[in-house]
Amino acid sequence: MPSTFQTLRWRDGAIEMLDQRVLPERQVYLSFDSAAGVAGAIKDMIIRGAPAIGCAAGYGVAVEARRVSHQSPTEFETTMSAGFAALAASRPTAVNLFWALERMKTRLHALSSQNVPARAAALLDEAHAMCREDVTLNRRMGVHGAALLPERSRVLTHCNAGALATAGHGTALGVIRSAIEAGKQVAVYADETRPFLQGARLTAWELQQDQIPVTLIADNAAGFLMSRGHIDAVIVGADRVAANGDVANKIGTYQVAVMAHRHKIPFYVACPLSTIDVAIARGEDIPIEERAAEEVLGYRGMRWAPPGIDVINPVFDVTPAQLVTALITEKGVVLAPDREKIAALFS
Amino acid sequence: MPSTFQTLRWRDGAIEMLDQRVLPERQVYLSFDSAAGVAGAIKDMIIRGAPAIGCAAGYGVAVEARRVSHQSPTEFETTMSAGFAALAASRPTAVNLFWALERMKTRLHALSSQNVPARAAALLDEAHAMCREDVTLNRRMGVHGAALLPERSRVLTHCNAGALATAGHGTALGVIRSAIEAGKQVAVYADETRPFLQGARLTAWELQQDQIPVTLIADNAAGFLMSRGHIDAVIVGADRVAANGDVANKIGTYQVAVMAHRHKIPFYVACPLSTIDVAIARGEDIPIEERAAEEVLGYRGMRWAPPGIDVINPVFDVTPAQLVTALITEKGVVLAPDREKIAALFS
Repeated sequence: MPSTFQTLRWRDGAIEMLDQRVLPERQVYLSFDSAAGVAGAIKDMIIRGAPAIGCAAGYGVAVEARRVSHQSPTEFETTMSAGFAALAASRPTAVNLFWALERMKTRLHALSSQNVPARAAALLDEAHAMCREDVTLNRRMGVHGAALLPERSRVLTHCNAGALATAGHGTALGVIRSAIEAGKQVAVYADETRPFLQGARLTAWELQQDQIPVTLIADNAAGFLMSRGHIDAVIVGADRVAANGDVANKIGTYQVAVMAHRHKIPFYVACPLSTIDVAIARGEDIPIEERAAEEVLGYRGMRWAPPGIDVINPVFDVTPAQLVTALITEKGVVLAPDREKIAALFS
Repeated sequence: MPSTFQTLRWRDGAIEMLDQRVLPERQVYLSFDSAAGVAGAIKDMIIRGAPAIGCAAGYGVAVEARRVSHQSPTEFETTMSAGFAALAASRPTAVNLFWALERMKTRLHALSSQNVPARAAALLDEAHAMCREDVTLNRRMGVHGAALLPERSRVLTHCNAGALATAGHGTALGVIRSAIEAGKQVAVYADETRPFLQGARLTAWELQQDQIPVTLIADNAAGFLMSRGHIDAVIVGADRVAANGDVANKIGTYQVAVMAHRHKIPFYVACPLSTIDVAIARGEDIPIEERAAEEVLGYRGMRWAPPGIDVINPVFDVTPAQLVTALITEKGVVLAPDREKIAALFS
């Protein structure tokens, strides 16, 4: 069941991204051919979702190399350093960004004996490979995760951890897609996910495109639905998982996890290993991005809050590992994740 | 510190209501001179908030009596029965509506020996009295509740339980107003309260009008702020409290209560005795209103969800008494409310 859209696509020597700010009303692809352009696209949330940000960053490096492949080796190295820096400064929380940049940097260093055009070509190959691998990993995660769901299940998800948040298939929604492919009946409840409304705009649209049953709810209704027995499992994605299993994900995830715990509903986090940051000991050390007040004051041009009102808009929160029933990774399911089990994933 | 606006006002023989659907952009008063008109205003949420709905219903009866005061006693009784029925059918969850109608009905029955115009005049007096009493009760609750707050405190509230939800002063926000009048420093965090955005539109505006410090947040951010130590207390209102202390209030309240409990933050419910329904044993028996999908699909005319998406929109939830640190009533504070303590309030 391949998705009917592409989050990222390579066309005419540039990377095109489906503009997620204007979904679902319009399906517009925007084209980028420089690191600065891609960094801006990540910052402005034209593309979002930890794995998709990683893939975009990879292409950001590749298009930059292509753009300046006429430069001398010395000029090229200076330009590329600035490009890496611009991409790294785009968003702070999702670790896949830094993971992808590190991978591209390692590749670039290994190419130092080659001429600049050859290096540029190899970096593009690397970005393509990273994207293909992302889909492969998501499918592997999907199979592992699908086994956790009952034959008939009603699954709550928060934000969008779907094909739109990855190179394809999705992490949390990938598990749902794989479960359906395996013949299970899955109905999804999508939290609308204020303030950016990834659930209402992206998850609802993406599942509708693939004809997967989805019911949209206000974030406030999740606990009530759990209390009335309407939810069998929660599956979310992650922006960064600490070495101890604490999970940074879209703001509101922590509340969903606490409510699931109260109602003894399993709470699953679907995350590729590239989302696990073993360099960060605990969730409280993960940097939490704050975004503009504008997102909370209204929606797009429309304001509903009174002028001059103060706003705090943290866009991620941290769910302690104790609330996570299992991490679903491409290497398998990690029940009750902790430092030891996570370290074992990387050994 | 009287508020700079009036939720309800009597003018030119009709009841005027501040149209809460268009706040904060516009301050428009709409005038109603029939029970059907007032019932429509309650249903359409021109006026909302349990105590304000009660006051509005009282005036609904009064304007209806006034409108048909030329009728014969028999005609009058038939008309009034229909008027009571229309008002009772307007919204199902807030019990103040039924409480107020019962009070007006009792008054009307006691007037059966009088002529119709005299009955109409007495019903108007009763509605006026109910409104005045509401403000008095709120001030009494405010004094009781204010004593619970530290000298400096950061208080989270959900939805709007302010002057706009009552005849004046407010229940939850009344406690905050009274604390400030008593010289305490209170800063408010207002949950935006999707889907109808009473927090972003009404609480933010109302507190700003009275120059009370307020910071608006997405509902999803409440748990994160608690986890980082930014909240000292939660105060909310109630739409109906069961005999055992379970609290029906705006959707999302339950999640806030669970999060407060997890973080050992006191969770207070400010409610006049008219909000306590001793005829309902437990919260799960309280009828929960579902409203139109439209509220979740977007905001006013603007749609952000894809067309054809399913929605569930329950607009209240139930917080178990075990999560309520105290009820704040006009008769005093009821710590750890239960059936016995609540029964004692009415004895």
